Amino acid sequence: MLDIAIIGAGPAGLSAAITGVIRNKKVKVFGNPMSTSYIYKAERVDNYIGMPGITGHDMMEQFTNHAKEVGVEIQVAKVIEIFPMGQSYMLNVENEFIEAKTVILANGITKTAVLPGENEFLGRGVSYCATCDGPLYRGKAVAVIGDSAHAEEDANYLAEVCDQVYYIPLYKELEHLDERIEVLRSRPKKIIGENIVTGLELAEGSLDISGVFIIKESIPTSKLLAGLETEGAAIKVNRMMETNLSGVYAAGDCTGKPFQVAKAVGEGSTAVLQAVSYLNALNRMEKTQA
Amino acid sequence: MLDIAIIGAGPAGLSAAITGVIRNKKVKVFGNPMSTSYIYKAERVDNYIGMPGITGHDMMEQFTNHAKEVGVEIQVAKVIEIFPMGQSYMLNVENEFIEAKTVILANGITKTAVLPGENEFLGRGVSYCATCDGPLYRGKAVAVIGDSAHAEEDANYLAEVCDQVYYIPLYKELEHLDERIEVLRSRPKKIIGENIVTGLELAEGSLDISGVFIIKESIPTSKLLAGLETEGAAIKVNRMMETNLSGVYAAGDCTGKPFQVAKAVGEGSTAVLQAVSYLNALNRMEKTQA
Repeated sequence: MLDIAIIGAGPAGLSAAITGVIRNKKVKVFGNPMSTSYIYKAERVDNYIGMPGITGHDMMEQFTNHAKEVGVEIQVAKVIEIFPMGQSYMLNVENEFIEAKTVILANGITKTAVLPGENEFLGRGVSYCATCDGPLYRGKAVAVIGDSAHAEEDANYLAEVCDQVYYIPLYKELEHLDERIEVLRSRPKKIIGENIVTGLELAEGSLDISGVFIIKESIPTSKLLAGLETEGAAIKVNRMMETNLSGVYAAGDCTGKPFQVAKAVGEGSTAVLQAVSYLNALNRMEKTQA
Repeated sequence: MLDIAIIGAGPAGLSAAITGVIRNKKVKVFGNPMSTSYIYKAERVDNYIGMPGITGHDMMEQFTNHAKEVGVEIQVAKVIEIFPMGQSYMLNVENEFIEAKTVILANGITKTAVLPGENEFLGRGVSYCATCDGPLYRGKAVAVIGDSAHAEEDANYLAEVCDQVYYIPLYKELEHLDERIEVLRSRPKKIIGENIVTGLELAEGSLDISGVFIIKESIPTSKLLAGLETEGAAIKVNRMMETNLSGVYAAGDCTGKPFQVAKAVGEGSTAVLQAVSYLNALNRMEKTQA
């Protein structure tokens, strides 16, 4: 069992992980590939003190190298959902189940808005994970809405399983899409169905499908962990980066403005030290009870 | 008039200053010499992401260089007191008076405890600033309590003005004390007097003096700015680093635990962005009224 599961491999998550490992905790970071971080695309960052005038690319590379140097383990995988288990949390990591005593949410901000029908049909035709739910749609027709080229891998996998895959990119350049997939350049408007999904309405026309895969770089926080208190789009935290759920902390852009590397790094550090205190208290309690 | 006066030239203050200058505000940092920072003495800092395994000395040097590169002005001087002036604040910087629209407190933590009598006699025989109050003790006897070798300069100055100067060092090695000064290696216990100071009680014996100069590397926050809300030793702030006084922000160790470079740097960044928003709102208001 992990001591600390960190969701997100950006500045907040990696900062937390470094201090967690130094404090001798069993830590693992789950994140998207480094290149998906906002900061990775920044032409120049001038105000992270100590590293003047650095490119976002170099910054993320140095951050990741620092983390790896101290022994941080990073798994490039998407955490689909987190379930409270009493004294611990169970993570669904693309259908691999991993248990952790504490969780630090450092999953950034979600760009794309929620589609009408997305919430209602989640688990009944709407999915965030091709690997997890693809097999349910064997021989059927599905649509994939992708907010970056990383979603093409999910679509390609579905092309192997499903009869028909429609791909609706929310970005410009396609990178490596399978030829069997039909690309539609039309804005998704609404998911249609009664009890279960039967179609997807687009700005031009509509599709008869059984499933809609919405592949975003980050899953809406409210979907990730039920019962987590938010304020608008931000996870609600106090000055110690505690959320309303015990053993769950948050850091970085997901806790709200300002969206700054320095803030993310600092919050990561505070969050993990709070998790360490919590783990140590848990340990003492277990020893007393034993 | 300054837009932003920053008290403290450690990681929090310098981080705030860099973003303040980048945001085109008139910023000045007031601080002790770099070598007085706690972090300067750290043998090795491993968990400030991006700068693995760096010495505290090198870190502070890189931080200061980064600040200077973007044009941050640092004045090595002690801010003795800050007075609210309606829409602005007046700083007493060793008896030079400097006005600022906003203030960021990043003055770290005070090591030394308050001496019995210190609060009661402040301004009536107790002083935190030799340059400011020395002339009041011309021809008289005074004691100087110094918590680091930097206090010796204050004592040396007083030796030129006063008849007799006793020096009570709270540290080991004296560095450059004037020969006219009498050194006493005894713990100060209590300041004596009625209405005004008449003596200082030590662990061994007592002194007949008219003034006690307590020269600390940082002035207790409650003395620095009257009316500032604190929680224990920490300045009370919200998630945007706002204190209870409008236009006054705090960042770094002075806001409480964890005492971490990353936290200080992040809070500095958040505090200054909040000050920038406040200044911009002030500007818009002034334009509307004009």
